[in-house]
Amino acid sequence: MEPIKVGLLGLGTVGSGTVNVLLRNAEEISRRAGRNIQICSIATRNPKKQRQCDLTGINLTADPYKIVTDPQIDVVLELIGGIDTAYQLILQAIAHKKHVVTANKALIAHYGNEIFTAAQKAGVMVAFEAAVGGGIPIIKALREGLAGNRIEWLAGIINGTNNFILTEMRDKGCSFTQALEDAQKKGYAELDPSFDIGGIDAAHKLTILASLAFGIPLQFQKTYIEGIEKIAQEDINYAYRLGYRIKHIGIARRRSAGIELRVHPTLIPDRRLIANVDGVMNAVLVKGDAVGSTLYYGPGAGSEPTASAVIADLIDVVRTLTSDPENRVPHLAFQPNLLVNTPILSIIEAKTAYYLRMQALDRPGVLADITRVFGENNISIESILQQEPISGEQDVPIIILTQRVLEQNMDKAICQIEQLSSIKGKIKKIRLEAFR
Amino acid sequence: MEPIKVGLLGLGTVGSGTVNVLLRNAEEISRRAGRNIQICSIATRNPKKQRQCDLTGINLTADPYKIVTDPQIDVVLELIGGIDTAYQLILQAIAHKKHVVTANKALIAHYGNEIFTAAQKAGVMVAFEAAVGGGIPIIKALREGLAGNRIEWLAGIINGTNNFILTEMRDKGCSFTQALEDAQKKGYAELDPSFDIGGIDAAHKLTILASLAFGIPLQFQKTYIEGIEKIAQEDINYAYRLGYRIKHIGIARRRSAGIELRVHPTLIPDRRLIANVDGVMNAVLVKGDAVGSTLYYGPGAGSEPTASAVIADLIDVVRTLTSDPENRVPHLAFQPNLLVNTPILSIIEAKTAYYLRMQALDRPGVLADITRVFGENNISIESILQQEPISGEQDVPIIILTQRVLEQNMDKAICQIEQLSSIKGKIKKIRLEAFR
Repeated sequence: MEPIKVGLLGLGTVGSGTVNVLLRNAEEISRRAGRNIQICSIATRNPKKQRQCDLTGINLTADPYKIVTDPQIDVVLELIGGIDTAYQLILQAIAHKKHVVTANKALIAHYGNEIFTAAQKAGVMVAFEAAVGGGIPIIKALREGLAGNRIEWLAGIINGTNNFILTEMRDKGCSFTQALEDAQKKGYAELDPSFDIGGIDAAHKLTILASLAFGIPLQFQKTYIEGIEKIAQEDINYAYRLGYRIKHIGIARRRSAGIELRVHPTLIPDRRLIANVDGVMNAVLVKGDAVGSTLYYGPGAGSEPTASAVIADLIDVVRTLTSDPENRVPHLAFQPNLLVNTPILSIIEAKTAYYLRMQALDRPGVLADITRVFGENNISIESILQQEPISGEQDVPIIILTQRVLEQNMDKAICQIEQLSSIKGKIKKIRLEAFR
Repeated sequence: MEPIKVGLLGLGTVGSGTVNVLLRNAEEISRRAGRNIQICSIATRNPKKQRQCDLTGINLTADPYKIVTDPQIDVVLELIGGIDTAYQLILQAIAHKKHVVTANKALIAHYGNEIFTAAQKAGVMVAFEAAVGGGIPIIKALREGLAGNRIEWLAGIINGTNNFILTEMRDKGCSFTQALEDAQKKGYAELDPSFDIGGIDAAHKLTILASLAFGIPLQFQKTYIEGIEKIAQEDINYAYRLGYRIKHIGIARRRSAGIELRVHPTLIPDRRLIANVDGVMNAVLVKGDAVGSTLYYGPGAGSEPTASAVIADLIDVVRTLTSDPENRVPHLAFQPNLLVNTPILSIIEAKTAYYLRMQALDRPGVLADITRVFGENNISIESILQQEPISGEQDVPIIILTQRVLEQNMDKAICQIEQLSSIKGKIKKIRLEAFR
């Protein structure tokens, strides 16, 4: 089957991330999509600029209208951002019967109603998973995964810049201005950060989430917006002492009188999972009447996380254009004839860190004996906790955390330690994972 | 258009939850699915038993084969559990060209390969979102939302019983046996809990997740399984003191030599979000090469959470059978002609709790003045934090947390308090949400 032919508008952070991931994971992506994906052309303001991605065989142009009208292109990825030009380009692409994937939250929040109507008339798909929550598949969750629920409310940390700034203010005790400067240095905030810190960006995203949750038209202009500029260090401290974190949150809540749509700094009890979402990470908490509370967490921005969402949408489109409807998504994610028989390792081949607890006689040299065995088996120790003996007891518990090692090496070392005369009984072994 | 006709096998916890949610949310579900869903018949061992759901107009039978062969049924929901009978029923349903939705992880882990092959040949859909993570749409996330990624590893708290027991052992300092008894009393553990605490149930789910992540056949028999029976109170305590939690985790990790597939108790650093998933809640952490780490959290079992996933699958099937492929999922989740114009409330109509910070003169009666204003405006105070004055300063900061109240009432009270002679300057107001 012919590959699906894709044209990109924009080769900035998200555009180049999309090219890189599509090329790097080409084999795995076509095993999932059931068809190859070919990037045919890319529109970029400066086609001659050096890029950090491999553009071999891809046609570069400075004119995006060439792509949205090109008869050979099946799907257009709109990754230029901004509102007016992007809107015109997408309408043109739809008029030329192209499917569209966009990461543009401002555009969807402002002109989504018009774009969707045009797409429906033309019989093409418009997908926008990347518009909210970066790589977190939150739009799919709301639109499909929770479709059986009456959504009561949702609340999201949906702007990574603001979450980074508030996290820095708490962790480092710095002022808003210092934290903003730090965010700018690290590339997490724009030179003109007003869209983020003023809450506009979060309001765009909340507008979209609320429509998906409640089945209401997009209405950005009715969203209440407050930014984080006025949060002082002392507010963060007082909140902390009272058992709260301050987060910049978008909230959409159904009440009998109507729907609340608001973006503002919010104190949240520190035991809530969402209160512990730190740095540039995003999370959306959704309360459905059947499912209860569910939370979706991940990187809310960045080159490849956003590309992940763009490509998920692209694969959705490719699957729809490729398979019969009943087999659109393969049962096991990959095409059944393309499953691979990667060997499953036995547990002794597993590699992990360990917690070990043993009872040892309370006498000198015990730790030296134990650590010698570890050394001989090339096992690094992360930490040791040795308890004082309880009065009258002859032996003491010793707890050791190791670094990662093959399980068979660990088992060999355990066997040797259990044979030491100073060790009583069996060693308790529990695996340890840092999940970095 | 004719409604989609559904037959249920089983009317236990999940079956009755599914009936209840389908009836309660019927209007919202058909706004999403684009078509009505009609429960035609239910097979249950004892059709005469009193039920906690409205079965008006639904045909009850003791013979499930009547349903899977009934020519008027479009979709069969298999909710009886167990392996052999369920397998035969599903094969029969497929042979009779019915689409199938199942919540049966044991069945999919053991016979998924065979069932999917049969479904593909017959041109029907088999969906199983409810098999892993209850109401969390984790299967959709892996199969579609993260489809652009090469998955590196995933790790899940995928058995609520075990997570409840380990949480109780930590929070209450009780033994494994006591926590298990407590779980049984609360209905979180079966009378014979061996499937859960022995890790078999988690291994079924891990088998499914690993196939979706890596594109390998289902191979339950190769999963390493360890339960939680041997976790002692002291291990939980030592782990805690070292900055770790012990969780029962299923891990699937890609290494160059092959794939690790293992279920066992695991120490996790307490700063990780997944380490703070407590009680019966489930969570799955997925590491993709493009997106990085994403986490999906929610209730992993129970009547309506599981029903939520069953119905999401059912809506997937209905959408596929109802719309043309390009319009399968509406852009804003609901059919475009069925969006509603629920009013958006203005911010003064919002109802939330508040954090207030003010500067007050350090003199008697100030708090009495403030609390009187709150009382007059029917605002309940949650807590007050009054600082000692810094030496030489005349005024002190007062921090007040209120309970939920309409914003306009709060604003009125703030206005009145700002006019008190003992209060200096403006009051800082930040909203507070408990997200219960």
